[in-house]
Amino acid sequence: MGWGDLGAFGEPSKETPNLDQMASEGMLFLDFYTANPLCSPSRAALLTGRLPIRNGFYTTNAHARNAYTPQDIVGGIPDSELLLPELLKKAGYINKIIGKWHLGHRPQFHPLKHGFDEWFGSPNCHFGPYDNRALPNIPVYRDWEMIGRYYEDFKIDLKTGEANLTQIYLQEALDFISRQQASQQPFFLYWAIDATHAPVYASKHFLGTSQRGLYGDAVREIDDSIGKILKHLQTLGISENTFVFFTSDNGAALISAPKQGGSNGRFLCGKQTTFEGGMREPAIAWWPGHIPAGKASHQLGNVMDLFTTSLSLAGLQPPSDRQIDGIDLLPAILQGQLIDRPIFYYRGNEMMAVRVGLYKAHYWTWSNSWEEYGKGIDFCPGQNVSGVTTHTQEEHTTLPLLFHLGRDPGEKYPLSFASAEYQGVMERISGVVQQHKETMVPGEPQLNVCDKAIMNWSPPGCEKLGKCLKPPKSDPKKCFWPH
Amino acid sequence: MGWGDLGAFGEPSKETPNLDQMASEGMLFLDFYTANPLCSPSRAALLTGRLPIRNGFYTTNAHARNAYTPQDIVGGIPDSELLLPELLKKAGYINKIIGKWHLGHRPQFHPLKHGFDEWFGSPNCHFGPYDNRALPNIPVYRDWEMIGRYYEDFKIDLKTGEANLTQIYLQEALDFISRQQASQQPFFLYWAIDATHAPVYASKHFLGTSQRGLYGDAVREIDDSIGKILKHLQTLGISENTFVFFTSDNGAALISAPKQGGSNGRFLCGKQTTFEGGMREPAIAWWPGHIPAGKASHQLGNVMDLFTTSLSLAGLQPPSDRQIDGIDLLPAILQGQLIDRPIFYYRGNEMMAVRVGLYKAHYWTWSNSWEEYGKGIDFCPGQNVSGVTTHTQEEHTTLPLLFHLGRDPGEKYPLSFASAEYQGVMERISGVVQQHKETMVPGEPQLNVCDKAIMNWSPPGCEKLGKCLKPPKSDPKKCFWPH
Repeated sequence: MGWGDLGAFGEPSKETPNLDQMASEGMLFLDFYTANPLCSPSRAALLTGRLPIRNGFYTTNAHARNAYTPQDIVGGIPDSELLLPELLKKAGYINKIIGKWHLGHRPQFHPLKHGFDEWFGSPNCHFGPYDNRALPNIPVYRDWEMIGRYYEDFKIDLKTGEANLTQIYLQEALDFISRQQASQQPFFLYWAIDATHAPVYASKHFLGTSQRGLYGDAVREIDDSIGKILKHLQTLGISENTFVFFTSDNGAALISAPKQGGSNGRFLCGKQTTFEGGMREPAIAWWPGHIPAGKASHQLGNVMDLFTTSLSLAGLQPPSDRQIDGIDLLPAILQGQLIDRPIFYYRGNEMMAVRVGLYKAHYWTWSNSWEEYGKGIDFCPGQNVSGVTTHTQEEHTTLPLLFHLGRDPGEKYPLSFASAEYQGVMERISGVVQQHKETMVPGEPQLNVCDKAIMNWSPPGCEKLGKCLKPPKSDPKKCFWPH
Repeated sequence: MGWGDLGAFGEPSKETPNLDQMASEGMLFLDFYTANPLCSPSRAALLTGRLPIRNGFYTTNAHARNAYTPQDIVGGIPDSELLLPELLKKAGYINKIIGKWHLGHRPQFHPLKHGFDEWFGSPNCHFGPYDNRALPNIPVYRDWEMIGRYYEDFKIDLKTGEANLTQIYLQEALDFISRQQASQQPFFLYWAIDATHAPVYASKHFLGTSQRGLYGDAVREIDDSIGKILKHLQTLGISENTFVFFTSDNGAALISAPKQGGSNGRFLCGKQTTFEGGMREPAIAWWPGHIPAGKASHQLGNVMDLFTTSLSLAGLQPPSDRQIDGIDLLPAILQGQLIDRPIFYYRGNEMMAVRVGLYKAHYWTWSNSWEEYGKGIDFCPGQNVSGVTTHTQEEHTTLPLLFHLGRDPGEKYPLSFASAEYQGVMERISGVVQQHKETMVPGEPQLNVCDKAIMNWSPPGCEKLGKCLKPPKSDPKKCFWPH
């Protein structure tokens, strides 16, 4: 989902009454970011509070390449990383993930080995394979074992877009919350639905209900579900004791537009890029009785902050033996403070850009290669900012492209290098970047090696279902990351 | 101002608390349009309820050219046109215009000759001349006579952007409202401020207060002023008896961006064009106790509807001896009805596009000429939709470019000509267009002839002030309209 997909963020069809109400009862974050313009690294960052370059969710196979965890990826979340649910356990929390995990699908990466107590969902995304023949369809797990596969047992009709998965995920969430409330146990629910990822889907009740087509139907169903979850918390009488945060893992995928792609508002480009459209996210914090209603915050936030903020809410400290990038947002959320902090925009192993205050400096620019662009892959459809949305990797490390995101949220007008404003701002930003680079210790890259043999051929539980498939011979190779 | 300039419409700095509150207490119109992507024709349409092609605010000097009323324009609002204030008089209304008139500056076009009882403001825009030498600076009128000129008596500091005009206009509005309330007379106030038109200005108190730079300062001051006007109505106890509508006369002028230009959200291009960015407007209706609070409407609306709606509120009928394009929006505003009606997008003498439901068909596309574009005049900066944002006038009358504005508000993905959707929709739209064209009787074009002799050399009242200038010899010529 993208920044511009919510009515509260100016989507012209204004079809998200529940999220808009969540915002009017809580706090809207206008300057909230993901840690990466792609799914897996973003989710790894959320759960570890660390940049992907630190937690290993990046590749060194080529410069500045987006990488994630397809089925043949050998890596995943390292045991050495401490995930939010592992830490929350210390405070007695019961942790559940519903939906897409995406931090690796091999046994050692299973979410229940990384702090979660329950899981209903899949290790990978639901886009392909679709026929289970040449490659195994993605499994759906309940806790330790698979209970079926996408497109076999969990249908998504690729023609109509019909699938009832969001309804299943919703019911899982409501049930889990009811159980925790009944047992008086504190809980962490990571509700990681994926209906807005192509192939986009919605259940029958929502199909054809949006002005925006199928993508809008999916957004409407998510919006409706979130309304039901918040209502459920209120009905159970625990809304004033439950902190809820809504956000997305990357900008809307404009390559899927218009039928399956969302909106990044007036921001430049989309998913896969380090322009604002790729990384600025819709974000709402909700906690009745604690968060003042109807406020909007300009605090620079990041999905990694949810790690540190959640620990803070549970009365826990973040680990002190490693660099944590996420900050505690509670002073911003509860007291309206503005905490000064930079936002780093990474693509693979490269820091492409940094935001300090209202200024954003691009050290590298790239949308995608001419070769890919020539095949019709366009991360910035209809947009073309000369010298900015480039199809060759452009280095600006000696003279970064500087934008003022207040006057120019669309990153269209770089400041003049000769201006006093440029000089003054870059002096400050250079210091921030220097410190960041000097203290950076990259983790071992997890997204370098691919091997068809380790795909989801025979996930645990496949025997009971008669759904085990025979893996091919192991043949590890460098993964190819074109973007 | 553009569609995307309000927080309620997703402007990322969210700096319009008063307009956002006005929306939360009233009704937000998401699909509201101007009748023309330029100032004068738009205002003429608002006050007559008729398309510029009917009321004469267009040119036939060249095909599909934007035209307006600079100082040397010979034409203006014809006496044969019936303006909203003329009609409201029949119901006992006292009418005032504050700010920019722009329907002609020669004596016969004076607003007090067209139904207004009071005027404080100027006949033309405040952009140039600036030195009163070669050409006369624009006069500022109080009622029948000028009381000074821009840049002489009414300063706008072109370096700092400082000017206290919005404060003067605000005070004029508050005073007028107080007087009408005291005398128990119904009133119509047309508050036509122009601080967001380049050269953008704001008063000292607002300078430097916006994240968005000077343009944002101007928006903040307008927002603050509107808050004060609404508050004043409430304090006087007449808010439940006063209908207030906020909108703009054209999309944000992107040629003035980033320093002096606003935002059209995710819509394509800006002022001067018939893409959504040029003609879709922010719009809010407010009438406590009558309009349900916090609703958003998808009613297709147009500034011309304010004519018919205002008459309806005053218990009057629109004239029956001429074609009126504006419709009565009250069923949409008060009962939430959706009235089926088309929106026509004109540029000069050409119907460029039409919207029916969620579909928009372009019969002609043009941003501006290669020649102008080569000089750096760009109405679509950073945007480039192949075959759509063209620099030659492209005719599509036999096979219009069709967009679905719900799935594709940015007009990036024309529907396939071969699709069943295209065929079905175009059949319906063709009927609407055919009927429109068959019954169209264009008015006499008012914006064809220019003559330096009729500029504001010696407006009424100049003698008292010693501010009369000597006009040159009359030399009428065809006006040149490049866009």
